[in-house]
Amino acid sequence: MFYYNPKDWLNAIFRITKSDTIRTLMPSLVFMALYSWGIVYLEVYYLKLSETSYAKDLTIMHSLLGFAISMLLVFRTNTAYDRWWEGRKLWGSLVNNSRNLAIKMQVYLPDDDQGTKTFFRQVIPLYAASLQKHLQKQSTKFQLDEKPHPELPDFKDNTHVPNRVAESIINKIYDLYKHKIISGDQLITLNEEMASFTNICGACERIKNTPIPFSYSSFIKKFIFLYVITLPFGLALTLGYFTIPVTTFIFYVLASLELIAEEIEDPFGTDINDLPMEKIADNINNNVKEILK
Amino acid sequence: MFYYNPKDWLNAIFRITKSDTIRTLMPSLVFMALYSWGIVYLEVYYLKLSETSYAKDLTIMHSLLGFAISMLLVFRTNTAYDRWWEGRKLWGSLVNNSRNLAIKMQVYLPDDDQGTKTFFRQVIPLYAASLQKHLQKQSTKFQLDEKPHPELPDFKDNTHVPNRVAESIINKIYDLYKHKIISGDQLITLNEEMASFTNICGACERIKNTPIPFSYSSFIKKFIFLYVITLPFGLALTLGYFTIPVTTFIFYVLASLELIAEEIEDPFGTDINDLPMEKIADNINNNVKEILK
Amino acid sequence: MFYYNPKDWLNAIFRITKSDTIRTLMPSLVFMALYSWGIVYLEVYYLKLSETSYAKDLTIMHSLLGFAISMLLVFRTNTAYDRWWEGRKLWGSLVNNSRNLAIKMQVYLPDDDQGTKTFFRQVIPLYAASLQKHLQKQSTKFQLDEKPHPELPDFKDNTHVPNRVAESIINKIYDLYKHKIISGDQLITLNEEMASFTNICGACERIKNTPIPFSYSSFIKKFIFLYVITLPFGLALTLGYFTIPVTTFIFYVLASLELIAEEIEDPFGTDINDLPMEKIADNINNNVKEILK
Amino acid sequence: MFYYNPKDWLNAIFRITKSDTIRTLMPSLVFMALYSWGIVYLEVYYLKLSETSYAKDLTIMHSLLGFAISMLLVFRTNTAYDRWWEGRKLWGSLVNNSRNLAIKMQVYLPDDDQGTKTFFRQVIPLYAASLQKHLQKQSTKFQLDEKPHPELPDFKDNTHVPNRVAESIINKIYDLYKHKIISGDQLITLNEEMASFTNICGACERIKNTPIPFSYSSFIKKFIFLYVITLPFGLALTLGYFTIPVTTFIFYVLASLELIAEEIEDPFGTDINDLPMEKIADNINNNVKEILK
Amino acid sequence: MFYYNPKDWLNAIFRITKSDTIRTLMPSLVFMALYSWGIVYLEVYYLKLSETSYAKDLTIMHSLLGFAISMLLVFRTNTAYDRWWEGRKLWGSLVNNSRNLAIKMQVYLPDDDQGTKTFFRQVIPLYAASLQKHLQKQSTKFQLDEKPHPELPDFKDNTHVPNRVAESIINKIYDLYKHKIISGDQLITLNEEMASFTNICGACERIKNTPIPFSYSSFIKKFIFLYVITLPFGLALTLGYFTIPVTTFIFYVLASLELIAEEIEDPFGTDINDLPMEKIADNINNNVKEILK
Repeated sequence: MFYYNPKDWLNAIFRITKSDTIRTLMPSLVFMALYSWGIVYLEVYYLKLSETSYAKDLTIMHSLLGFAISMLLVFRTNTAYDRWWEGRKLWGSLVNNSRNLAIKMQVYLPDDDQGTKTFFRQVIPLYAASLQKHLQKQSTKFQLDEKPHPELPDFKDNTHVPNRVAESIINKIYDLYKHKIISGDQLITLNEEMASFTNICGACERIKNTPIPFSYSSFIKKFIFLYVITLPFGLALTLGYFTIPVTTFIFYVLASLELIAEEIEDPFGTDINDLPMEKIADNINNNVKEILK
Repeated sequence: MFYYNPKDWLNAIFRITKSDTIRTLMPSLVFMALYSWGIVYLEVYYLKLSETSYAKDLTIMHSLLGFAISMLLVFRTNTAYDRWWEGRKLWGSLVNNSRNLAIKMQVYLPDDDQGTKTFFRQVIPLYAASLQKHLQKQSTKFQLDEKPHPELPDFKDNTHVPNRVAESIINKIYDLYKHKIISGDQLITLNEEMASFTNICGACERIKNTPIPFSYSSFIKKFIFLYVITLPFGLALTLGYFTIPVTTFIFYVLASLELIAEEIEDPFGTDINDLPMEKIADNINNNVKEILK
Repeated sequence: MFYYNPKDWLNAIFRITKSDTIRTLMPSLVFMALYSWGIVYLEVYYLKLSETSYAKDLTIMHSLLGFAISMLLVFRTNTAYDRWWEGRKLWGSLVNNSRNLAIKMQVYLPDDDQGTKTFFRQVIPLYAASLQKHLQKQSTKFQLDEKPHPELPDFKDNTHVPNRVAESIINKIYDLYKHKIISGDQLITLNEEMASFTNICGACERIKNTPIPFSYSSFIKKFIFLYVITLPFGLALTLGYFTIPVTTFIFYVLASLELIAEEIEDPFGTDINDLPMEKIADNINNNVKEILK
Repeated sequence: MFYYNPKDWLNAIFRITKSDTIRTLMPSLVFMALYSWGIVYLEVYYLKLSETSYAKDLTIMHSLLGFAISMLLVFRTNTAYDRWWEGRKLWGSLVNNSRNLAIKMQVYLPDDDQGTKTFFRQVIPLYAASLQKHLQKQSTKFQLDEKPHPELPDFKDNTHVPNRVAESIINKIYDLYKHKIISGDQLITLNEEMASFTNICGACERIKNTPIPFSYSSFIKKFIFLYVITLPFGLALTLGYFTIPVTTFIFYVLASLELIAEEIEDPFGTDINDLPMEKIADNINNNVKEILK
Repeated sequence: MFYYNPKDWLNAIFRITKSDTIRTLMPSLVFMALYSWGIVYLEVYYLKLSETSYAKDLTIMHSLLGFAISMLLVFRTNTAYDRWWEGRKLWGSLVNNSRNLAIKMQVYLPDDDQGTKTFFRQVIPLYAASLQKHLQKQSTKFQLDEKPHPELPDFKDNTHVPNRVAESIINKIYDLYKHKIISGDQLITLNEEMASFTNICGACERIKNTPIPFSYSSFIKKFIFLYVITLPFGLALTLGYFTIPVTTFIFYVLASLELIAEEIEDPFGTDINDLPMEKIADNINNNVKEILK
């Protein structure tokens, strides 16, 4: 992720970034332009349909369905953004949790127990780092897939590293409790921090391995396709060659919204819009190092 | 569930999966096409209504109500998706809770108490498995129905298996507490995990046995039916035989949205869009086996 | 409540249930049809307004306001459904809470203390039953009304039964604690279950005694009325006698949405869409009996 | 607040209550009617613009912006209602919390400690009463205002009464703990009730002293004004004198939605739509008196 | 922030505040007016396109996309407002938390331990003050940016002051526990207040350093730009010189919504709409001083 200036309009409008939808869509946009040209040529110059042809009013259908397609795309946008923002919240909780655990251990541990302090100084940031790797593994993505994936490089080695790290944290805390370095009351105050790591990991996995229901994803694409492919039939007689940019632009808008949603709904990748997990893990490392000493 | 690639447009557009709405709707679509043909024939060729007939502007009604029907369908889509996603979240919590309980038991139990470890290694995954079976039983679905259902195969045997499993878990933990293997402070740190199983089960049951209010479900269907059935009257004079694909397509879109919502709102079945409960239960099993040893 | 099959379209479309809005609206629909007929007769046959009369374009107003009225109705639908679903969630929590308390008491109580077990076996389902009665009392509905209601049958006897039951549960648990049958740590693990009953009851009361602000309820009705009453003026010259079904249908849709919302927003009644509180209380009874023995 | 019957349509439509928006808007509606009349006279009778004048199609702008203004008003409606409902929820929590604390104190306190019981019997309802007064003070409203308000009657005396009451409750509980009347475990079970009072008060203050951002409030008003003021220019040539009621009605709808939102978004006043805080405080008093004896 | 009167329409409509979007947009509005004039001149007076030219119906595109752009802007408005309101809630929690901690310390500490009381009297408000400074530092904003920012004045000194303050609070509380001034039960009742500070800080940082995904921000701007830039082509033949105010007004509305969203989505700045953090910190200071004495 890079921090962009939301008030820089010129840049936003005219700069085509690497992941801009216009790049991905370019071949389809060209195809749509050619296709529209074909329909216009056919209707207006070849068949010479008059202005009173029934075909002229076909756009009624697109008006009546305009609401439905817009709302569906906003539904798509909302759910995709919600996942992205939930992912961000989860990594925010990870920061909070790491900080709180570090502060508590710094306070609870005797000043001279450098060994244990070093342990927590290393193991707390390790959780964030291992969670990042875990989420970017292919096998995490296909965790709930019914098809087997022997082609995945990490298919065999499916040790759940974050769980291991969480276990070692809880183990160490319990050890301190068993040796009376922390009291039972203190153990209780650490309970939430202990459980929180695993809860965050599970929620991230859920976002990663469960895209929105296939029915919606597939229906929205079918709907956009049929909507746009039928557009030039009605527009050709009204707009002539203007049909070409109009159809292409409408297709660009509808397909872009779907494309962005697709990219946003999995926030744990390496795209420009994905969450800066590495940066956050770095910050956790810095914070913990600053606190525990 | 199978993990689909959200970026594969060609597949999404052209592949007709087993549960595609176009399959379910095919007979209705054929009927709608025939019906539209009938209306067009009647108005244009039989009655020979002129272009200035009052009937021509009937589409005003469909324009004015276009907002209402679209919004109602988006309301339907949102509530259905919310249930589906809540179901997914609940099973995610089940994963987290199982992992946390396993980690804590692994840490709290003495290394040589293999008996108790084996107990938890078996009973934690058992909860997920029994919850899956419980949710797929017919008697769970009709739990709140006022009509009796003696025809159900599991009508007699209505033991609540997940409750039994939860009870045995809590019982064992209390046993450990009574025999001083875990302390009172540790019992408190296990409290949330103990209650969580039953809370998750209850929430899943709620989603399963309570569809959205019958009034809405019924009104939306009535509305779609009346909306589409009156469409060709107005369109026939404007679009001629183009009325047939237009009406059919609008019907396809509206009915598909309702159909998908119906399928999604009960996420605990065995459809392609339903939650991969078996896979999740498997993962819980693997995780717990990896942790508790 | 009866469990309906959401996939049964024919039934939903053609069966007119007891609480169908078309029944309630029938007189108004007849009035609206007659009224529209009157306007059409007046404009077209009596005044013989020509097609170029200014009146013809009055529908512009209805187009411009079509968005607003649809959105307002969806706002109404969303808030009503949210209350209904929140009510369902609350009764779901009651199930979970009752089960959890029963499981814990079954585990915590000595096997031979049949007296206390019998107490909980009876008093836990009693809470659900008393809450149902409490919510269906007229005096609960008018709890926050500024006008006095001496006409209510239960005006005098305003003992808050659910509070009493909750008190007796907490009292018994504290008694067990005082007599060292349960330890302090166990008392803490029971804390959430103790407070939960009263929280659920308070939240249900809130839904029951607070309809959406009168301003909105009244404005929406005024808006629907003025919108529909002015419709035939503009439509008469365009649609002729078709104005009658069109106006009536639009009125049917708008008024139905408001009517359903009214019914749904108070989910604690005895309508077909209301929550099956009795059934849920029965299930709690069965579950508790199965657990506590 | 008075409890209205949501199913009484006639009353809702024809009764003009004291706070009805039509009263507040009357002068503006009259102005708008006169203004529209002026524009119609100017365009149609003075300038005698023909039907083919460019001015005729100005309504295109209002169509294109119709979506935007409707959605903005629904955004306004949603946020205002959310605040109102959140306020209601907070006072509901206050009821729950007061009841729970009363039940626990009734159970925990020895039967003969009438002094302490009397203390809680008085101080718990006092919190609700003092919170009501606190929220209705002018100084609470302007708490975050950057301008000084020496004109406020309660400017000097800014003691935070609810905080004082909360402190005395916590103080008494701690006292009981110090004198071993309640144990440490019991203190822990009272923790949530202790913190809850202050949390509720803070959340109410937040709703009271923070209206929605000035930018939105101001932009929506500007937008409505410009939208309505330009309406007659386009409509005059199409609708003639019908422009007058049409413009006035559209203005009535848009302004009403904004007016209601303004009234609802601060639920802690004394309007007809505001929360019945006094009534709720009364109920708390009755409940606590019934429980603690 | 200044508290405005939401019912003052005249002020809202006619007063142009410092941060009014019309100021920021003025150059663009002027450009848009000139650009529209150019297109009208070109089409109507230079090319003399007839009314039957294909260009006349280009507005169809703007109608079809009108839904999409409005919904996208409402999506933008909703997410921006949600962040703003979440920020306000977080600072509200900070108030509650500070008050609760102060009340508890006042009650728990012996009357004569003025030293510790003075410590908390100073350090609790210090948290709010340091959090404000932390959120307004440039380095907090660019925390997750991948580009280095050596130009920032606070680049070097990246000590996390709020963490330090939180640590000193927790340290002091633990100290009191170690010296038996507060008991283990009391430590547990203070646990939530201890963790809360860090959680609030982390959530504020999340809002500050994560704007909505660049794809959306950039796509919305591109869409507005292309939508408005193509408007005059279609309108010129229909509206003549009226195209100029119409295009400018539509641009004003669309761009204003985006501009306001941009300003609102980062609520921790010093704009007129930003949260009054200094005022809230002041209030915390006053409250704590009043409580702890």
